[in-house]
Amino acid sequence: MTKNALDRLFRPQSIAVVGASATPGKAGYMAVQLAQPSGARIYPVNPNETTILGHTAYPTLTAIGTAVDLVLFAVPAPACPALLREAAAIGAGAAIIMGGGFGESGAEGQTIQDELIAICAETGIRLLGPNTGGYAAPPRQLVASFSISFSKLKPGPIAVVSQSGGMSLILSCIAENDDFGVSLAVGLGNAINIDAADVIDYLATDPDTRVIALYLEGLRDGRRVVEAIRRACVHKPVLALTIGRNEICAFAKSHTGNLVGSYGLKTAALRQAGAVIVDNSNDLIDAAMALSLLRLPPNPNPGVGLLVGQAGAGLLMLDQLKSLGVSVPRLSDDGIARIARELPPMHYISNPVDAGRPTPAFPKLLEIIDAEPGIDAVLIFVLDEPTALDPIALFTESCPNLRKPVIYGTAGEAGDMRNVCSQLARLGVAPFRSPERAARAMRAVVEDAKNRHRLTEHHARSRKPPALPALPPGALDEATAKDLLRQAGLSVPNFIACRDRSQARAALARLAKPVAVKVLDAAILHKTEVGGVHLNVRDEAQLEAALDRIDAIAPRGPRAYLLEEMATAGVDLILGAVRDPVFGPTVLLGMGGVTAEALKDVTLRLAPLTGADAREMLGEMKASVLLDGWRGSPAVARDALVDAILAVAELLDAHPEIAELDINPLRAMPQGALALDALMVRC
Amino acid sequence: MTKNALDRLFRPQSIAVVGASATPGKAGYMAVQLAQPSGARIYPVNPNETTILGHTAYPTLTAIGTAVDLVLFAVPAPACPALLREAAAIGAGAAIIMGGGFGESGAEGQTIQDELIAICAETGIRLLGPNTGGYAAPPRQLVASFSISFSKLKPGPIAVVSQSGGMSLILSCIAENDDFGVSLAVGLGNAINIDAADVIDYLATDPDTRVIALYLEGLRDGRRVVEAIRRACVHKPVLALTIGRNEICAFAKSHTGNLVGSYGLKTAALRQAGAVIVDNSNDLIDAAMALSLLRLPPNPNPGVGLLVGQAGAGLLMLDQLKSLGVSVPRLSDDGIARIARELPPMHYISNPVDAGRPTPAFPKLLEIIDAEPGIDAVLIFVLDEPTALDPIALFTESCPNLRKPVIYGTAGEAGDMRNVCSQLARLGVAPFRSPERAARAMRAVVEDAKNRHRLTEHHARSRKPPALPALPPGALDEATAKDLLRQAGLSVPNFIACRDRSQARAALARLAKPVAVKVLDAAILHKTEVGGVHLNVRDEAQLEAALDRIDAIAPRGPRAYLLEEMATAGVDLILGAVRDPVFGPTVLLGMGGVTAEALKDVTLRLAPLTGADAREMLGEMKASVLLDGWRGSPAVARDALVDAILAVAELLDAHPEIAELDINPLRAMPQGALALDALMVRC
Repeated sequence: MTKNALDRLFRPQSIAVVGASATPGKAGYMAVQLAQPSGARIYPVNPNETTILGHTAYPTLTAIGTAVDLVLFAVPAPACPALLREAAAIGAGAAIIMGGGFGESGAEGQTIQDELIAICAETGIRLLGPNTGGYAAPPRQLVASFSISFSKLKPGPIAVVSQSGGMSLILSCIAENDDFGVSLAVGLGNAINIDAADVIDYLATDPDTRVIALYLEGLRDGRRVVEAIRRACVHKPVLALTIGRNEICAFAKSHTGNLVGSYGLKTAALRQAGAVIVDNSNDLIDAAMALSLLRLPPNPNPGVGLLVGQAGAGLLMLDQLKSLGVSVPRLSDDGIARIARELPPMHYISNPVDAGRPTPAFPKLLEIIDAEPGIDAVLIFVLDEPTALDPIALFTESCPNLRKPVIYGTAGEAGDMRNVCSQLARLGVAPFRSPERAARAMRAVVEDAKNRHRLTEHHARSRKPPALPALPPGALDEATAKDLLRQAGLSVPNFIACRDRSQARAALARLAKPVAVKVLDAAILHKTEVGGVHLNVRDEAQLEAALDRIDAIAPRGPRAYLLEEMATAGVDLILGAVRDPVFGPTVLLGMGGVTAEALKDVTLRLAPLTGADAREMLGEMKASVLLDGWRGSPAVARDALVDAILAVAELLDAHPEIAELDINPLRAMPQGALALDALMVRC
Repeated sequence: MTKNALDRLFRPQSIAVVGASATPGKAGYMAVQLAQPSGARIYPVNPNETTILGHTAYPTLTAIGTAVDLVLFAVPAPACPALLREAAAIGAGAAIIMGGGFGESGAEGQTIQDELIAICAETGIRLLGPNTGGYAAPPRQLVASFSISFSKLKPGPIAVVSQSGGMSLILSCIAENDDFGVSLAVGLGNAINIDAADVIDYLATDPDTRVIALYLEGLRDGRRVVEAIRRACVHKPVLALTIGRNEICAFAKSHTGNLVGSYGLKTAALRQAGAVIVDNSNDLIDAAMALSLLRLPPNPNPGVGLLVGQAGAGLLMLDQLKSLGVSVPRLSDDGIARIARELPPMHYISNPVDAGRPTPAFPKLLEIIDAEPGIDAVLIFVLDEPTALDPIALFTESCPNLRKPVIYGTAGEAGDMRNVCSQLARLGVAPFRSPERAARAMRAVVEDAKNRHRLTEHHARSRKPPALPALPPGALDEATAKDLLRQAGLSVPNFIACRDRSQARAALARLAKPVAVKVLDAAILHKTEVGGVHLNVRDEAQLEAALDRIDAIAPRGPRAYLLEEMATAGVDLILGAVRDPVFGPTVLLGMGGVTAEALKDVTLRLAPLTGADAREMLGEMKASVLLDGWRGSPAVARDALVDAILAVAELLDAHPEIAELDINPLRAMPQGALALDALMVRC
């Protein structure tokens, strides 16, 4: 049903334009003019005209007398609701409202927008916008917009989906400047009915689209987008550019920049779903160009072979690839020996392979690298010197049967470059005009393969979630929270909750010393700050002193104490979970300690997650090297940490009434991981 | 003298080609052919020919009978020394040896190379190379190379200086692809005589060059290059791209990747000298294009006004600018009020200014921003829609008298872009074809202004260095090191060095408790690891216990103890200095603690440095927010830290016999900074 309506939106056989105009330059004129080349039947709607641009004009939508696929609105905002209802009544599949004056413009516009939302819900008509620039589908010469800029785009394999029409045009132009084109350029506008998820679902099976490039600002329903990306990236690569690394919310009118930074969460969620995250507009288009030409099979860590005609370019590329986490593995001894026979001594040949200048041996070098078992894709850079190496002949005559996909970086005179690059693209080789652009495009190709490999694990849960008990009634104090954690499969220290001093003395006798003595009160969120935590208690005298100090705290709930065996040394982490308003249940892992906190050394994932996700989280923290045995200390048990992360995710899944959960610290040790403190908050 | 020889190298009136050939395609033929268009007098040297390409051939250099400016060598490596000597004998100013077979190719080549070094030293002839691609100076149609690629470069304002000829061509091609050209593209090769510093000095006053773009791999004498950059950037912008963020030394055959990472030191040193550091080839050329058209006066923090026709582009640019530390200040209330009168409500107008689409008000908006006192440069982005806004008319007709330099980002069809961008460049407006490229170019312009402002402070030393005593003889133990630090103006805790237990007991009585009791032995570098450090000693019993433990350590020097008053809480830093083999005396500042160490949270500067440099170092550490009062703790005394950094730099300056100095930790507190431990190593 959704599919069908989106087909009528993006592949209409008939288009009505309400507010069509016979006056050149007006929006209602441009809409008719730009829609014409598509070959769709055009129905201008204007009660004062008989024909517009040669098409019979109709006084109303109803007068058309047929269920048009798509209705374009070139009328002021207040007129839209009635006309949208009329469009639905004649059986139109979809509408595009391009003008402004809706939710983005204040209370009055919001009222109109709410009416549009209600009409869509009621009638089932699908609406793109309002406040969108419309779209262009260059392969079908179809423009649904007032803006002539949409008519200038070049057809090609990239679908550009943007929240703003302006950015869909800007990104498409960046592609066009490199002789690449788009299958669709669409701005979603206020996205009150059709959102990014709908368009991604449509594009997943669109035959004109080989890669989906997203520019997303804020998201209303992050889970929907995430699920759509997960479905789409099985069929074709999905790339995403987003904003919010910095505090720009006054301008973007959205987001806050706290520890669970929105940029961090958005990019973690989109990447977890399978999208390749890029840094900027140029990288988005470069990655899209590469991935429209070549895609690797799912692979946890593809190996890249690097073959260069200029060592300087090779150094820049190798440095760039390593910064981006791309593996450039040493070639096999056999491969290196074969390369050594082709080159003079002193060349670096174990990968990167430095060909010096491109000699007649170059094709042979490429074939050797291509045949390497540890190499999944080949990255080349050669200065364009046709007398030394003809890149087209390299792939057609010299090496016509390469097994691995190739990205070809080169540099030369602009005219030559246009010619060489377009020919290479036709051969399925992705061309780039600088060393680092080629390297970053390769990173996108590699990242796509890694993402998809991770997704193959997605439903292979690494362990069976335990059946979790119902939450006890009332506020959740540390003892209750730790009981729940223990039942969820997390390890906690041995502890005893005590209602009075005699219980505390008995507990001290039973527990291994030293113990921590803490105030037990769900209403006290920051125990240490109020003097409610006393460590290294070994005997009754120390216990009494600790209890005296705790009793001096103004009680908020009934007075109680928690005595707990102290853990051995280890690395402290923070493990938490929240229900994000956009993305839902989200797990946060961070390195403990003041420096890590200052540096916001945290990593995020949406729950549920897999063991692979959890292992990635551990590796993603900037200070994760501390887990591997830093300066002689033993390595901690990563498996226990993975289990703890999964358990927290499952807990949030099983208990929708938990709003927030914080384990700070989670002590990681060689023999396991212990939740030393726990805070659980109900919704 | 140097100047003169470099002029003869790069602006020769006469060129001899030894090994000239009459056979088309051979190196000695190409050299003659490519040199011809320059109009220099050409002297082919070949005993077997009478003319080559119409020029009279000479049997030997000597036979030319005149002091040619430049000699190009197209002969095998073993023939070079004798011919270089002959070139010097006839009074040639400079020579270029382009072929390989020298130091880069093994022991035999190294012998020849050493001979060339000796001949240059002896005769004064200047040599470019060997193992260089030569150079092109397109404004003078001059190519001194065998490679036809050098003859295709477009003339323009950028001088590209690269260690490899290949990268000088690649970078020049990237510029050409954006219709920009180069004044010089030169590869330095093995740089045994003419190095980057020589060429930078030459280019500083070269009238064809408006900006110097460097690609540097490793440096032999970093100080020379740093000094040349410092001289040059007064005259014109200097940009630098370098490598080594990652472990790539097996390929680059250089550098180690330890805490004082070479990339970190190289970029810190080049930036301190005044160069704008860029991330990759494209950014190098983009920054060069922008800085060839506009340069700000020295400014500690230039304000950028951002005016956009598309909000999405504005968000991407603002996010990018903030990530790069560029200030986008709020406009004045008056300016905002004036802008509000030009735009419908709901636009964001306080900076960035979102013009919606470019309306007729656009020129007025630009004028208002341009007139703002807090704005030093203007960054625009507008999708190219000539019917909405003609960018050429904007700068010629609507706003011909702007006071602030402008970078203009735009996007449109490739052909239109070439036309628009070349016209804008002619008007002194720097054009870029994506939002983020424009933003990053603006960052380079801002960085150049900041660098130069910092350099104006360079010789204004913030405090008078004290007269420092001579180092005492022998190894330097902690007490000696701390005495020196104290005399250099650093604060150290009260301490007493003790030769026996009775002195230790007396010291305990005199010092404020608690004290630290340490082994005092210059031969023990890691005191804590051997049980040589005992903290919180308050009474004689604890002292005896500590001394017992210390006495159990196998003595290396004479047994001695250090008793020292313990410091109050604070933030621990690491302050050190080394004599780097490439850059000389270098100061390192890092955040203390295991996490910071794992994250390599350090910053580097060459000594001597100014208060401004030291303050920058404090701000550059990723965790520097901890200094400002984190989570309720008081802010530490930054001025005391600045003094400590300067004192360490001065100490290294005054004592060339100190190889290395480590203060770990330097305890930063609200009331000052204390060197709690000190290690000093002689050269």
